[in-house]
Amino acid sequence: LTEQQRGMVLNLVADLYPADVALLLRRLPDAEAGRLFRWLPPEMGADVLAEMEDAVRAALLDDLRPDTLIDLIDALDTDDAADVLADLPDRVALEVLPDLEDAADLTELLEYGEETAGGIMAREYVALAPDQTLQEATEAVRRSAADVDDVYTAYVVDEAGTLLGTLSLKQLLLSAGAVKVRDVMDADFISVAPRVDQEEVGRVVQRYDLVSVPVVNDTGRMMGRITIDDVVDVIRDEAEEDMQLMSGLTGEEETVDSAVQVSRGRLPWLIVGLVGSGLSGTVIGAFEATLQQAVVLATFIPVVTAMGGNAAVQSAAIAVQGLGAGELWLSDAFKRIGKEMLVALLNGIVVAGLLCGTVALLGMGDVTMLVATLSLTMLSVSLVATTNGALIPFLLTWLGVDPASAMGPFVTTLNDIMGLAIYFLIATALYL
Amino acid sequence: LTEQQRGMVLNLVADLYPADVALLLRRLPDAEAGRLFRWLPPEMGADVLAEMEDAVRAALLDDLRPDTLIDLIDALDTDDAADVLADLPDRVALEVLPDLEDAADLTELLEYGEETAGGIMAREYVALAPDQTLQEATEAVRRSAADVDDVYTAYVVDEAGTLLGTLSLKQLLLSAGAVKVRDVMDADFISVAPRVDQEEVGRVVQRYDLVSVPVVNDTGRMMGRITIDDVVDVIRDEAEEDMQLMSGLTGEEETVDSAVQVSRGRLPWLIVGLVGSGLSGTVIGAFEATLQQAVVLATFIPVVTAMGGNAAVQSAAIAVQGLGAGELWLSDAFKRIGKEMLVALLNGIVVAGLLCGTVALLGMGDVTMLVATLSLTMLSVSLVATTNGALIPFLLTWLGVDPASAMGPFVTTLNDIMGLAIYFLIATALYL
Repeated sequence: LTEQQRGMVLNLVADLYPADVALLLRRLPDAEAGRLFRWLPPEMGADVLAEMEDAVRAALLDDLRPDTLIDLIDALDTDDAADVLADLPDRVALEVLPDLEDAADLTELLEYGEETAGGIMAREYVALAPDQTLQEATEAVRRSAADVDDVYTAYVVDEAGTLLGTLSLKQLLLSAGAVKVRDVMDADFISVAPRVDQEEVGRVVQRYDLVSVPVVNDTGRMMGRITIDDVVDVIRDEAEEDMQLMSGLTGEEETVDSAVQVSRGRLPWLIVGLVGSGLSGTVIGAFEATLQQAVVLATFIPVVTAMGGNAAVQSAAIAVQGLGAGELWLSDAFKRIGKEMLVALLNGIVVAGLLCGTVALLGMGDVTMLVATLSLTMLSVSLVATTNGALIPFLLTWLGVDPASAMGPFVTTLNDIMGLAIYFLIATALYL
Repeated sequence: LTEQQRGMVLNLVADLYPADVALLLRRLPDAEAGRLFRWLPPEMGADVLAEMEDAVRAALLDDLRPDTLIDLIDALDTDDAADVLADLPDRVALEVLPDLEDAADLTELLEYGEETAGGIMAREYVALAPDQTLQEATEAVRRSAADVDDVYTAYVVDEAGTLLGTLSLKQLLLSAGAVKVRDVMDADFISVAPRVDQEEVGRVVQRYDLVSVPVVNDTGRMMGRITIDDVVDVIRDEAEEDMQLMSGLTGEEETVDSAVQVSRGRLPWLIVGLVGSGLSGTVIGAFEATLQQAVVLATFIPVVTAMGGNAAVQSAAIAVQGLGAGELWLSDAFKRIGKEMLVALLNGIVVAGLLCGTVALLGMGDVTMLVATLSLTMLSVSLVATTNGALIPFLLTWLGVDPASAMGPFVTTLNDIMGLAIYFLIATALYL
């Protein structure tokens, strides 16, 4: 991209949606992305900024002058503006904050945790008074339209700012102009508290099929509103975070991170895995005498650990999902585990049968006792691992930890250790 | 629940949202759920039905008479009605279909795959003509309001049914009544084709922050619309499916399934795991002579497999997510893998260092050569496993398979086999 291409490039970019420009910037080398971003008209620059991932955004904003930054942030809705501010270095954020149009609102938003309802809400919304006629209400919506994007619902508040009801644009359009807002509003609305976790907001919006949800504090005061596009991002982010936790990542790795950043994020779980598998190794080491007498037992180490790991992860996945979707509650733990043990018994019998059939066919070692050892091991491992898998997510939820972390290296390692101990104890008793 | 309680229970339930009644029915024993559901007024029964999971719904509808079923389905929007029909036994579906109000629309919807844009769209939408004035358009919206729920956008179509543009209710409310629809509509709208996968619909809606998206066929004809509440369900379902695939489930297990159903769904991957770990066992068996000479090597089997499994799952998770979110493309494969190899090298060095330090401190066996064996093994396993983890999702995407299945027992097992082979080859060469 050279200065001569500016006109041509801007022409091309003007036809794109902000989300597509954000994707384009993400795929350009840093220097070119910076140049193109500075060429964009402020209004478009702001829209593009709102669509960008944190890491890409931080890189782009790094070398902007404060006054450009202020123009950009002023063009954003307060929820996006608060996000951008939160991602800036503290020094820069403090420098620009006092000069921003919505400085007071933003200071308030920044006080909420980034992953709470307060942290993702916008302060802009269309407010109506209960005694307005619909004619007046329509006028009020018109006046707000310039400041508030994505209007689907207006909020009816009294003088003290207490939320009394909601009125959808459809309802506003459908009723006669002389009717009072109070008489057509929906007083039986769903709201969330500002300190609620964003994951809970996602659940509420999904369960009740909402397109926006008001944030209301303890005293019933309307604080702001959360729109569905932000909720969709939350749902996707939380799903990504769960998947990363399950995979032994810290939950924040992005595809644009540098190799050293990535390495640093992955090492903790690799080291946990190392320590855990070291313990598994110690179990094997403790039975070195057994192994020395029957090296054939080593052949089944992967079988035992695979059965334990797979069975545990399967039952953990269902518990994690049920808890996440609000379909399972802590009080369901015992019922759930009872059912899982039944499944474990069924699957243990089938797998033990298959394994023993194979061993008998291949005629490995002293077949009768080997088959007995393996059957008993498979059944026990299936039961223990499945129960662990189902139990740990409940335990973590009860402790206030994200249950998805149960499925990382932690559960697998725990079950390796327990599975191997079971295996060698049974083998020492039966096979030797 | 007895017949005497009917009035009281219905009073209580009348104040609940349909989603909450659905949750209540889900938690009641089957017989009681069936009774309560039959007590509900048809309109509420239909709303509750739309909120229910497939398995629960099938159980409830099983013992309804055809005419009750017809009343219920007629009260639903076509997208939900098509879902309910698809879940009914074929015999029952064919019996009630001809008597339904929207039989023709439903037949068309059922022809699309359940997980495509056509399969999740509704046929109901508010249609406007381009030459209507906004005054007339408002009238048209009013007339449609009874039939169409969740109206945020009206669709401007010509006589042939071609979609010309969209008009948000906000825009409709804001402009003067005498203006023509054609002059204020947004002609630069985003649409999806009916055969597109629902996951792609989710991506489009998320990227462009839409609340509804029109479905348009090859010739530009408007087929229906998809609303955000269904898209949110799609995003959550796909995330759950990915998590289940990753965990070695078939992607459809629900918390309400019976133990036998659950067992049947989990066995395939347990058996794949068994076969795979059998192969790992075969690798160990092939080096029985090596092991016989140095049983200490068995101690490190879990360390080698844990390193391989964890490193592979970490790099696979990032590739799966990047591909799913549209942030990584097939053409990025080589760049991505290059970066992963750098990460693998860094992590391999750190983990090998830690492991060898521990071994040296504990003074296990012939320390010098054991340390050399382990260092080389850890580095190689880190490289091979990380590369596999990053490569396989690209390969699966290229083959048209959901890349999340890369992270189930499959990748772990593959890396166990390769890791153990590397370990014993290096050990035989260096340690013996």
